[in-house]
Amino acid sequence: MKTKIAIIDTMFARGDMGKVCIETMEKNAKKNNWEIEIMRKTVPGVKDIPVALSQLLEQGCQAGIVFGMPGSAKVDKTCSHEASLGIQEVQLMTRKTVLEVFVHEDEGKDDKDLAEVMHNRASKHALNLLWMIFKPEELEKRAGSGERQGRENAEQVML
Amino acid sequence: MKTKIAIIDTMFARGDMGKVCIETMEKNAKKNNWEIEIMRKTVPGVKDIPVALSQLLEQGCQAGIVFGMPGSAKVDKTCSHEASLGIQEVQLMTRKTVLEVFVHEDEGKDDKDLAEVMHNRASKHALNLLWMIFKPEELEKRAGSGERQGRENAEQVML
Amino acid sequence: MKTKIAIIDTMFARGDMGKVCIETMEKNAKKNNWEIEIMRKTVPGVKDIPVALSQLLEQGCQAGIVFGMPGSAKVDKTCSHEASLGIQEVQLMTRKTVLEVFVHEDEGKDDKDLAEVMHNRASKHALNLLWMIFKPEELEKRAGSGERQGRENAEQVML
Amino acid sequence: MKTKIAIIDTMFARGDMGKVCIETMEKNAKKNNWEIEIMRKTVPGVKDIPVALSQLLEQGCQAGIVFGMPGSAKVDKTCSHEASLGIQEVQLMTRKTVLEVFVHEDEGKDDKDLAEVMHNRASKHALNLLWMIFKPEELEKRAGSGERQGRENAEQVML
Amino acid sequence: MKTKIAIIDTMFARGDMGKVCIETMEKNAKKNNWEIEIMRKTVPGVKDIPVALSQLLEQGCQAGIVFGMPGSAKVDKTCSHEASLGIQEVQLMTRKTVLEVFVHEDEGKDDKDLAEVMHNRASKHALNLLWMIFKPEELEKRAGSGERQGRENAEQVML
Repeated sequence: MKTKIAIIDTMFARGDMGKVCIETMEKNAKKNNWEIEIMRKTVPGVKDIPVALSQLLEQGCQAGIVFGMPGSAKVDKTCSHEASLGIQEVQLMTRKTVLEVFVHEDEGKDDKDLAEVMHNRASKHALNLLWMIFKPEELEKRAGSGERQGRENAEQVML
Repeated sequence: MKTKIAIIDTMFARGDMGKVCIETMEKNAKKNNWEIEIMRKTVPGVKDIPVALSQLLEQGCQAGIVFGMPGSAKVDKTCSHEASLGIQEVQLMTRKTVLEVFVHEDEGKDDKDLAEVMHNRASKHALNLLWMIFKPEELEKRAGSGERQGRENAEQVML
Repeated sequence: MKTKIAIIDTMFARGDMGKVCIETMEKNAKKNNWEIEIMRKTVPGVKDIPVALSQLLEQGCQAGIVFGMPGSAKVDKTCSHEASLGIQEVQLMTRKTVLEVFVHEDEGKDDKDLAEVMHNRASKHALNLLWMIFKPEELEKRAGSGERQGRENAEQVML
Repeated sequence: MKTKIAIIDTMFARGDMGKVCIETMEKNAKKNNWEIEIMRKTVPGVKDIPVALSQLLEQGCQAGIVFGMPGSAKVDKTCSHEASLGIQEVQLMTRKTVLEVFVHEDEGKDDKDLAEVMHNRASKHALNLLWMIFKPEELEKRAGSGERQGRENAEQVML
Repeated sequence: MKTKIAIIDTMFARGDMGKVCIETMEKNAKKNNWEIEIMRKTVPGVKDIPVALSQLLEQGCQAGIVFGMPGSAKVDKTCSHEASLGIQEVQLMTRKTVLEVFVHEDEGKDDKDLAEVMHNRASKHALNLLWMIFKPEELEKRAGSGERQGRENAEQVML
């Protein structure tokens, strides 16, 4: 039986991260013989993600990944926080893993950089979710290693 | 059977966004032969929206849209945040989609501009909600496109 | 049968808003032949309001109104926010309308002004709650009109 | 039958407020013939209070009082806020009254003053809780009177 | 029967605190004849901890300990706050004790210091959790004593 994965993205974001995610997932699923089926829904902005996510997870998706781009104004940061709390609440209501992939509009130095951050973060987290479902040992061997999404990894320090 | 839509607005707001919403919805519903029935309730301010919304959704509305105008003082921003968390909670309790349409009193450069933002955001989101209910593909084809409500759209960047 | 209304206030506040509320409610109820019964409880501070409110609402009150005066220190603002979240949670747990009437200690220019804000806000919201229960059309005809409690109303702008 | 009261305190706090509370409660209970039984649990810091509190309340305590000392760094203020939200959530889950007695490490002008604030607040709230359980009219007659814990009372203003 | 303990850590953190925790727990469990079994899961970042934790606690773990390293940017502080709220929510859902061990990336004066804070906090809290499960009197005798994890203890003040 195929593992159903929910993808929610927004009209508000300035790049189609959902598409990058789907491409990454399909390529990796094929390579590893992981059977997946993707269900996607698009909503206006990040605050509309939680309930849409809950609907897909309760329609049989086993896990999810969501994409958003909070704006740079202070009110946008508050919206982002509210959306994140909702996404977390949905996970706890359903006990299902969901990766939140937000790229803040002011993270990019310019439009080109913003596009790179979006692509990097969307594709790395698409793979992370597949690992969490099909190959959790990939995460365990990177425990406390400074792994990042969007930019290069941080250095590990000795304990 | 008609789709019941809940509208909650406030006495506090400085413009009748609920009226703009109803006009937009009725015009578009008629044009597309979408059968809708609107239930409206007015409350004092944004913090009174969540429970009123829960009441209408539990009385049979399938979706909702709410309008508010948080003031410009710091305490008003906190109220707005609290209201947003409550509106989200109601969505997760009922699993029903609700669009939150808030226009902050300090968003407008002057009263004329404030009125335009209110009109633009209220009418665009009224249409968004109809699309989410009757024609979700309209949102999917705008995924990651920089679509905004209240002001002009943002530019899409290449991934 | 009488409509039971819960009132919660605090020892911390610097004015007896509960008393103002009761006087306003009784006067208006008498004038309009609205049958009400008031249940009142006093707690130490605003953070003690939510659970006390839940107790009264679950003992049969159909609606509630709560009074508090958050202090001016930063930690007091946080307490106020926590209390507001709790008051909202109680409304969503019980699906019952509760008006939160907080007057921040630093809202007043001086003690006289603070007293006036308290009196104005407490009495206006006392009437608002009665309208919400017995005459909701009074709110609907003021939708988006800039109605305020505590100070004079704001101006409506044209949409 | 004795009324069971839950006390939770922390190792992190710089003074034994739990002990002050117990002494105040035992003295007042004896004087008024109030039958109480105290159950106490100590946790590392304030964020560990909510779940410990929920455990004691669900083991039969009718009410609770918790003591903590948030540090002065910004991250400590956030922890304090999180703990407060959790303590409130536990009250709403159990419908039981809990007084939160936090003394912020930076409230004291010096160590001596800090100790005095802790002692004052812990003992006054210990008595408040007993009043809430056994003699609620003591709170009602102080409604809106400016009653404070930790420092002297504020002045009441005329409404 | 062995007591199952859940450990969740992240790939994002710059040091393997989970490993330090396991070493501390195994050494102390052996010395005191406490029968424990550790279940560990690694997730991408702190916001992925709550749902993973809920899964392990609902699979039979009696308690948990989680490790994370929030970054130094403002958005990271918000993520940390969201994660903390989720970890608390999981505790209240399951009524099980979980220690949250976060080391903020900007807590260290340099990499060496950061490593020391991580090691100190992880090992002290590993022992705290064992005490909470097997020997709670160790915490009670340190009530209000200024006990800290990560750095040296604070001084107790006289009440």
